[in-house]
Amino acid sequence: MDIDIKTYMRHIGQSARAAARDIARADTLTKNRALDVIANILLDKRSALLSANATDMERARAQQLDGALLDRLALNEKSIDAMAEGLRQIAALPDPVGEISDLKFRPSGIQVGKMRVPLGVIGIIYEARPNVTADAAGLCLKSGNAAILRGGSEAMESNQVIASCVQEGIKEAGLPAECIQVINTTDRAAVGELITMRDFVDVIVPRGGKGLIERLIAESRIPVIKHLHGVCHVYIDGEAAPDKAIRIADNAKTSRYGTCNTAETLLMAESVAHTLLPPIAAIYRKKGVEMRGCAQAQRILPDILAASEEDWFTEYLAPIISIRVIPDIDAAIAHINHYGSRHTDAIVTENYTVARRFLREVDSSSVMVNASTRFADGFEYGLGAEIGISTDKIHARGPVGLEGLTSQKWIVLGDGHIRG
Amino acid sequence: MDIDIKTYMRHIGQSARAAARDIARADTLTKNRALDVIANILLDKRSALLSANATDMERARAQQLDGALLDRLALNEKSIDAMAEGLRQIAALPDPVGEISDLKFRPSGIQVGKMRVPLGVIGIIYEARPNVTADAAGLCLKSGNAAILRGGSEAMESNQVIASCVQEGIKEAGLPAECIQVINTTDRAAVGELITMRDFVDVIVPRGGKGLIERLIAESRIPVIKHLHGVCHVYIDGEAAPDKAIRIADNAKTSRYGTCNTAETLLMAESVAHTLLPPIAAIYRKKGVEMRGCAQAQRILPDILAASEEDWFTEYLAPIISIRVIPDIDAAIAHINHYGSRHTDAIVTENYTVARRFLREVDSSSVMVNASTRFADGFEYGLGAEIGISTDKIHARGPVGLEGLTSQKWIVLGDGHIRG
Repeated sequence: MDIDIKTYMRHIGQSARAAARDIARADTLTKNRALDVIANILLDKRSALLSANATDMERARAQQLDGALLDRLALNEKSIDAMAEGLRQIAALPDPVGEISDLKFRPSGIQVGKMRVPLGVIGIIYEARPNVTADAAGLCLKSGNAAILRGGSEAMESNQVIASCVQEGIKEAGLPAECIQVINTTDRAAVGELITMRDFVDVIVPRGGKGLIERLIAESRIPVIKHLHGVCHVYIDGEAAPDKAIRIADNAKTSRYGTCNTAETLLMAESVAHTLLPPIAAIYRKKGVEMRGCAQAQRILPDILAASEEDWFTEYLAPIISIRVIPDIDAAIAHINHYGSRHTDAIVTENYTVARRFLREVDSSSVMVNASTRFADGFEYGLGAEIGISTDKIHARGPVGLEGLTSQKWIVLGDGHIRG
Repeated sequence: MDIDIKTYMRHIGQSARAAARDIARADTLTKNRALDVIANILLDKRSALLSANATDMERARAQQLDGALLDRLALNEKSIDAMAEGLRQIAALPDPVGEISDLKFRPSGIQVGKMRVPLGVIGIIYEARPNVTADAAGLCLKSGNAAILRGGSEAMESNQVIASCVQEGIKEAGLPAECIQVINTTDRAAVGELITMRDFVDVIVPRGGKGLIERLIAESRIPVIKHLHGVCHVYIDGEAAPDKAIRIADNAKTSRYGTCNTAETLLMAESVAHTLLPPIAAIYRKKGVEMRGCAQAQRILPDILAASEEDWFTEYLAPIISIRVIPDIDAAIAHINHYGSRHTDAIVTENYTVARRFLREVDSSSVMVNASTRFADGFEYGLGAEIGISTDKIHARGPVGLEGLTSQKWIVLGDGHIRG
């Protein structure tokens, strides 16, 4: 490794650790002010940001990067508004830091409760999406954490503009600029250093493709809040309301192809497959979605391709869907827990008992009844914005917002109490 | 590695993964029945257990194992009662599994909340304390997890008796015996396998000395809920009530020497050092506690040894305490955050603002005002029993009970809702 990268990263780490102590103590008003100022600056610099993004998009197209990536990279008027609005929403959320809960007297006479505290220093590694720079900075600031951001080279121009807005806003609010640091090298060794600096970084949050996540699983010596992929399912039960089934099967697959909460597999109870598969297939066909089915699905839709065993494990991130006809809820739960990625899975049913079983027994970070998998998102869940999605069970699960960036310490209030 | 150990461990892992699905779905009544039955069997086998423990103690003394370890290994009538009572307390606690919280309507019309779910398979690695076998089994059962227990060779006889009680109780309640498996080899390679079987084990909880924890930090490929050591502080502020200061300084150090929540360093505001150090030192002297002080402490107590820089970092687990005289709350917070181990720290003060600052700014898993550090314990905090103490900030912090052995998934209830 280049010795300069190591020195550079350790300097960033030390500065972040020092700034973390200040931001952990910062009061709510100061943090909210920083968020509001950053939002204003972002809107002011809208045209500079759009033109930087156009440069990134041009280069990405020239490099023939794939469609899902281009979809993530693109900024427009609406997404800049959303970025600023996201920061204001974070400002409007209650400050989690210092929140005391469950303070109860114990038989010994002591009063025991929990106080919410920041994690410390968060390392964020992301790829195409430039809005992550603003979202991550906002969530880390509000939750009292320092952050080290490492964006992808595809979004370099966009990220630099956003980063400068963030830094300007922090300083204007009187907080140390080192609260949010952006790594200004695309050298991959910087990531290697970031994910092993245990003294300076408390948690790593990656936002990116499978390659990045797999590298982190193998190499990170710091806890990682991550999801590897999103193989999301919609299961249409034998007692599904047909209109809800069709609407959700459509929305979950076709509203956006490049997102992790998009459905990749449609499971269909055999009792309704004959009536519901044809209208759903008609929609997919019209929208250009390629279908790959099991033998039973192929009997109903003779023109579709056969799905291989591999297909059931695949996150297409593209207009492709696999379709499997199964007997019942038991088969649905078994399929999802075996082939799924523990991200987001939905059932469409009117049956109370079946819905309850699906909620309880599907072992995924988001489990839904009669709603599109596309709702699995920090904004939609009311977190303001999300720093990432976790399919692990340790620490945080599903969309991770402010709470996932904090921890709780125990507090004990006594009056001279000693233990007998 | 012995191929047989690898095969044996993978077989245990697979059985645990399969049993985890059953115990995750088990109803509260069944789990509570298992806990009650185990408690009864433990009390019935009291004499067999005491005689097994006597054998372990004899061998440990012959091997000249240290006093702190002997303290942890010893069982008596009272500690067997406490073990059974611990299981009944766990049975009496609300079942965390399936608990739904924060179910709120969002502007889109979907209702979003969280459901508490088991982690899956917990690997428990412990050393001397035989009661961990019962506590860990109880906590894992109630929280819907399967467990793989690996006790220390020192407690082998005691653990075998307890393990047989646990297995008997589980079977009597109609749960699969593989819910709680005890590894029946003392081969260290078994631990190496346990901490790297990512497909079969979701979290590792060690209960043991620094050597074990350091090995896990270096080698485990599975998240570890751990504390490395307990360098706990009592800070006696300039506005401390003298009676509370003396009582807490005494209790925090001398009520038990071998426990991780015992105070190792006494910090004393210089404004009260002259009046409060002598009576505290008199107690320590009477109880045979060796004192090691800073220069200022030595001026007040001329007969005590000098503390080295090393002392401030040391968990003695023995009748030794380091004493430092410092100017004020700022110095106390700085000392604790620098030399401490983020375990448990207490202040004695009557000053409101100083107490609030200590609670907020000391970065430890338990922070106390006017109470002995010895209270940092799952029983005392109302968790029923603790599976361990965590000084990390990720997932669980401080004493870890049922909640720390669970996670929360998101649930979304809709009525055919799709995302716009």
